Amino acid sequence: MCRWLAYTGTPVLLETILYRPEHSLIDQSLHARMGVETTNGDGFGVGWYGPDDVESPAVVRDVGPAWSNRNLREIAGHVRSPMFFAHIRASTGTAVQQTNCHPFRHGRWMWMHNGGITDFHRMRRDLALAVDPELFLDMEGSTDSEMMFYLALTFGLEEDPPGAVARMAGMVERTGQAYGIDFPLQMTLAVTDGARLWGFRYSSQGESRSLFYSTRVDTLRQLHPDLAFLRGVSDETRLIVSEPLGDLPGAWNAVPESSYGVVQPGDDEMLHFTPQAA
Amino acid sequence: MCRWLAYTGTPVLLETILYRPEHSLIDQSLHARMGVETTNGDGFGVGWYGPDDVESPAVVRDVGPAWSNRNLREIAGHVRSPMFFAHIRASTGTAVQQTNCHPFRHGRWMWMHNGGITDFHRMRRDLALAVDPELFLDMEGSTDSEMMFYLALTFGLEEDPPGAVARMAGMVERTGQAYGIDFPLQMTLAVTDGARLWGFRYSSQGESRSLFYSTRVDTLRQLHPDLAFLRGVSDETRLIVSEPLGDLPGAWNAVPESSYGVVQPGDDEMLHFTPQAA
Amino acid sequence: MCRWLAYTGTPVLLETILYRPEHSLIDQSLHARMGVETTNGDGFGVGWYGPDDVESPAVVRDVGPAWSNRNLREIAGHVRSPMFFAHIRASTGTAVQQTNCHPFRHGRWMWMHNGGITDFHRMRRDLALAVDPELFLDMEGSTDSEMMFYLALTFGLEEDPPGAVARMAGMVERTGQAYGIDFPLQMTLAVTDGARLWGFRYSSQGESRSLFYSTRVDTLRQLHPDLAFLRGVSDETRLIVSEPLGDLPGAWNAVPESSYGVVQPGDDEMLHFTPQAA
Amino acid sequence: MCRWLAYTGTPVLLETILYRPEHSLIDQSLHARMGVETTNGDGFGVGWYGPDDVESPAVVRDVGPAWSNRNLREIAGHVRSPMFFAHIRASTGTAVQQTNCHPFRHGRWMWMHNGGITDFHRMRRDLALAVDPELFLDMEGSTDSEMMFYLALTFGLEEDPPGAVARMAGMVERTGQAYGIDFPLQMTLAVTDGARLWGFRYSSQGESRSLFYSTRVDTLRQLHPDLAFLRGVSDETRLIVSEPLGDLPGAWNAVPESSYGVVQPGDDEMLHFTPQAA
Repeated sequence: MCRWLAYTGTPVLLETILYRPEHSLIDQSLHARMGVETTNGDGFGVGWYGPDDVESPAVVRDVGPAWSNRNLREIAGHVRSPMFFAHIRASTGTAVQQTNCHPFRHGRWMWMHNGGITDFHRMRRDLALAVDPELFLDMEGSTDSEMMFYLALTFGLEEDPPGAVARMAGMVERTGQAYGIDFPLQMTLAVTDGARLWGFRYSSQGESRSLFYSTRVDTLRQLHPDLAFLRGVSDETRLIVSEPLGDLPGAWNAVPESSYGVVQPGDDEMLHFTPQAA
Repeated sequence: MCRWLAYTGTPVLLETILYRPEHSLIDQSLHARMGVETTNGDGFGVGWYGPDDVESPAVVRDVGPAWSNRNLREIAGHVRSPMFFAHIRASTGTAVQQTNCHPFRHGRWMWMHNGGITDFHRMRRDLALAVDPELFLDMEGSTDSEMMFYLALTFGLEEDPPGAVARMAGMVERTGQAYGIDFPLQMTLAVTDGARLWGFRYSSQGESRSLFYSTRVDTLRQLHPDLAFLRGVSDETRLIVSEPLGDLPGAWNAVPESSYGVVQPGDDEMLHFTPQAA
Repeated sequence: MCRWLAYTGTPVLLETILYRPEHSLIDQSLHARMGVETTNGDGFGVGWYGPDDVESPAVVRDVGPAWSNRNLREIAGHVRSPMFFAHIRASTGTAVQQTNCHPFRHGRWMWMHNGGITDFHRMRRDLALAVDPELFLDMEGSTDSEMMFYLALTFGLEEDPPGAVARMAGMVERTGQAYGIDFPLQMTLAVTDGARLWGFRYSSQGESRSLFYSTRVDTLRQLHPDLAFLRGVSDETRLIVSEPLGDLPGAWNAVPESSYGVVQPGDDEMLHFTPQAA
Repeated sequence: MCRWLAYTGTPVLLETILYRPEHSLIDQSLHARMGVETTNGDGFGVGWYGPDDVESPAVVRDVGPAWSNRNLREIAGHVRSPMFFAHIRASTGTAVQQTNCHPFRHGRWMWMHNGGITDFHRMRRDLALAVDPELFLDMEGSTDSEMMFYLALTFGLEEDPPGAVARMAGMVERTGQAYGIDFPLQMTLAVTDGARLWGFRYSSQGESRSLFYSTRVDTLRQLHPDLAFLRGVSDETRLIVSEPLGDLPGAWNAVPESSYGVVQPGDDEMLHFTPQAA
C-alpha cells in the first residue's frame, strides 16, 4: 500500500527526517520492509506548516517515485517546519495523478492514509452520496483515501477529530456490509490542524497495518546520551511512522490495534478506537 | 477552451493530418485563431482505431503541451488509422491530469468536447447522481466533458447517439436552470463507435463555438486537380475540426448552429439538434 | 525565448512577486508582451536562498507550463526569501527536460538566461572543449544557457563575475565567427552568489532582448505614497526583469544596450559591457 | 541497472510479449529477479519498426515507472511489429529524463544497454572527445549508454556492427585503464537496423550481467505441442532478454560470457567477442 511519516516538534529541515535516517521514508519508497508492497513508487507528497502568517499548510505532491525526485530533495534541504507530513504511494489501481497523492488538505487540515476500503470501486457512489454536498465540490481525485477525508469532514472532523473518524469508519463498514464485504476497512491515518496531531490504527479484521510512535525525547536522551540530534530537539518532539526509521534501540513503540494517539501541547494520549454510527 | 479534430476515411499516418497542414492542430496548441484562448497547452490526447482484431480504440493522453511532446510525434509518424480523434486542452480550472484529457473512451466508443458547463462546480454533484450507478464507477476524472459523456452513455448513447446527446443536453440545461444559470451549456462534440462519426454544435445561448466539416473529396478534386493528397484518399474521407486546417479555398464548411452531422458509409447527413427531456 | 525575474531585498513570500502583480511572471508564461514568443510553456524554475545555515540555494525546476503548476504555487505561497530567481522557458528546440530549465546552480551561484547562441548546435562541441575538464563533469543538460554558465565558471565567475561573463561572451563570439556566423550571441543574464546580483544585457548585433530594473524604493515611495507594499520593503529592495510587472508609473527603467548592473550592499552600479578575449 | 527485451519475427501486438507472459518485462519493472536492483522504475522506452513506408523506427520513451504507465499499455495493445525493443531503467545517478531513456535511435538504428561504464563521470569528457564531431551534435542525454552508442557509430556501426562495438569497448577500456580503473566496462547490448539484430554480452571483469536468447520455435513446438502461441509464429521468431520471461522449460539459453549473437534471415550465429583497438 503506502508508507507515511508525521513529525511535530522543534522546527527542523525536512531532510533531517526524510532523507538522513537509515531506512528513511525515501529509502522506504524503494525498499519498504513492513508494507504489503516493497515498492512505493506511484507518487508522493509532503505537507508542511510554514511561516506564522500563512494559515494553511503547503502541500507539494507529484507523480513518479520519491527516490529520484530532485525537487523533493531541494525542498527538504531548504524548508524548516515544526509540523509536517510525508507520504509515498503504492497505487492499488486508481490513477497515478497528483490529485490522488497524499496528504490531502482542507483549510488548515491535512490527512494521509495507508490501507484501503475493500472493493472501493463498488462502494464509491454510495460513499460519495454521504459526503456533504458543499464539500463534495472540492473533491478532485478518485481514491478511497480522499473519500474517507471528505466523509470525516462531513461528520465533524474540524470540531471532533476522533469522533468524526469513528463515524467515517462506521459509515464505511456499514456500507461495506450492505455489499456483503466481510472486512471493509483497513487504515492507518494521520490528521492534523497544525497544532495537534492524531494517528489512528484500525481495521475491520483486527489485523491492521503497522504503525509506530517515537519514544519521548527526554527518555531517549537518557538511553542515548551521546546522540547530538536528541540534544537539538525539544521534549515535545514526536514522530508517527508506518515503519521505524533507523535502528535506535528503544526509540519506537507500536500503536496498539484499534487505537489512536493524540500528540498535543501537554501530555500526549493513547486511546481506544471504535467505529460509530454516523 | 480546447481545439479538436476528427478524421475518418482512407487510412493515413496520423501526422499527415496532425502535423503537416499549415495551421495544423499541433500549431493550434500554441496559436489558435478562433478559440477563447490562443494557447491550448494543458494536455492533449489522440485516440485511434487500429488493427482489425482489436475491439476498442487506443487512447494516448498526456499532460503538458502537445507542441513539445516527442511521443505524440513518434506515434503520429508511425501509426496509420482510418478513424482517429485528436484533442488539445486549455483547462478552465480543473486539474491538469491524464484522466481529464480527451478523448474519453468507453468500450468501442470515443468522445471529445470543446466548451463547458457553466458553473459546473456547483452542478457537479447533481449531474453525478444522474449517471447510471454502474457507469459511475468508471469515471476517473473531474471534468464536465467526462460527465457529459457518462450522462450520454446513461441515456443510451450506444443505441441512439443523437437522442442520447439530446437527453444529456436537456438534463444539463434543466439542472442549470434550477441553479438560476441562464446559459448552462456550450458544446462542440465528436462521438464515434469506430464505424460512424457524429459531430454536434450547440449552446444554450445560440452562440456556439466554431465547428467545420470538410468538403467532399470528389468536389475538392475538381477545385484543386493538382493536389496530390486528394488523389490518395477516398471520396468518403472526411474531417470535422474546431477550426480549419490550411488555407485550401472551398475546403471547409461551417456546421450550422444547433446542428449535428453524421459521417457514415453512404450519404452523410446534417440535421437539426434540440435538447430533449431525459 | 524566455522571461525571467530576479529579486533581492526584504524577505517576502515568493508569491508576492511571482503571482500577485498584474502582468506577473506567471501571467507572462501565457501572455508575454515583449518576447519573441508570447508563450513560455516549456518548463520553469525558481531558485531561492533560504535559512541562514544552508549554504547553497534551493532550485526547483519542472517541465510543463508554470501557469498550471500547483507545486510552484504552493512553494510560492509558503517560502520567504531575500534573494530569488524565477524563469519561464520557451524552448527553441532543445529537449524540454528538468536539466534544461533555469536557473542553473553551482555551489552558492545561480545563473539564468534569455536569448541564445546562434547555431549553437554547430558550435556546441567547440564550446564544450573550452569548459574546464573538472567543471565539464557537472554539466547535465543540453542548452546553450548552461554551456554559457560553465564557460563563465571556467573563466573565473566566482572571483570576477563581470570579467568572466565578458570572457565567456568573447569566446562565444570568436567561435561563432570561425563558423561564419555574423551575430553569435544574444543574452540577458542574471547571476548571483546570494549576496550580490548582476544583470547583463548584450547582443553581438546591438539589438538585445529587453531588460528592466526597478526604481529605488525610496524614490517610488515619494511617487506613490499610498502603496502599502512599498512601506513594507527596504530601500535596498530591487528587481531585475525581462519585462515590467504591473503598471506602476516610474517603477521601471530599461537597462541600456551593452551594459550590466550590480545590485549590492551600498550603492548599486550600472556599467558598460564589452566581450573580452578569454 | 536495467532490464531489456528485443523481439524479431512474426508481427505481433507488443503486449503479447511485454505484458502477457508471466514475469513479463513490465512485471520486472517492479520485481526483477536477476538484476542488481529489483526495481527498474526510472523511465522506460519502446522502439518499433512500423509500416513499410516509414524508414526509421518509432521510439516512445517516458520518465516514471513502466508498471503504471497507461500510454505504454495503450500502444502495446494496438501496435503490431515484426521487430521491437523495450527497456526499463534503473538509474545509477544520471538524471531521470526522456533523453536518458533507451532505446536510443540514429536513422534506422536502435541501441539499448544494461550495465555501465565504471566511474563514467570521470571518463565522460575523454569519451565525448572521441565521438565524431558531426555525430556529437546529435547527443542529447547524459548517460554512458548513449555515449557508447555514439562511439560505436563513430567507429562504423552502420557498416560493421560487431567490429564497431568491439572498437567502442576497446576505447572505453583503454580510457578506463588510463584512469586506473580495473574493470571499466559492463554491458549487455542490443543493436538493430530493422533487418538484423545483434546481442552482446561482455564485461572487463568476465562477470557479465545475465543475457538469454530464446530457443528456435520449431524445437519449442516439439517440446510443447499444446502451446497455441507457438503455432502462430514463424520458425525465425526470436527473443533476446535480460532475464527469462515465463517458465517454459527449454525456452531460454544463456548467452555465453564474452559473446555476441546475430539474429538474421537464414542461420543465426553466436560468436566470441573481444574488444579491439579503435
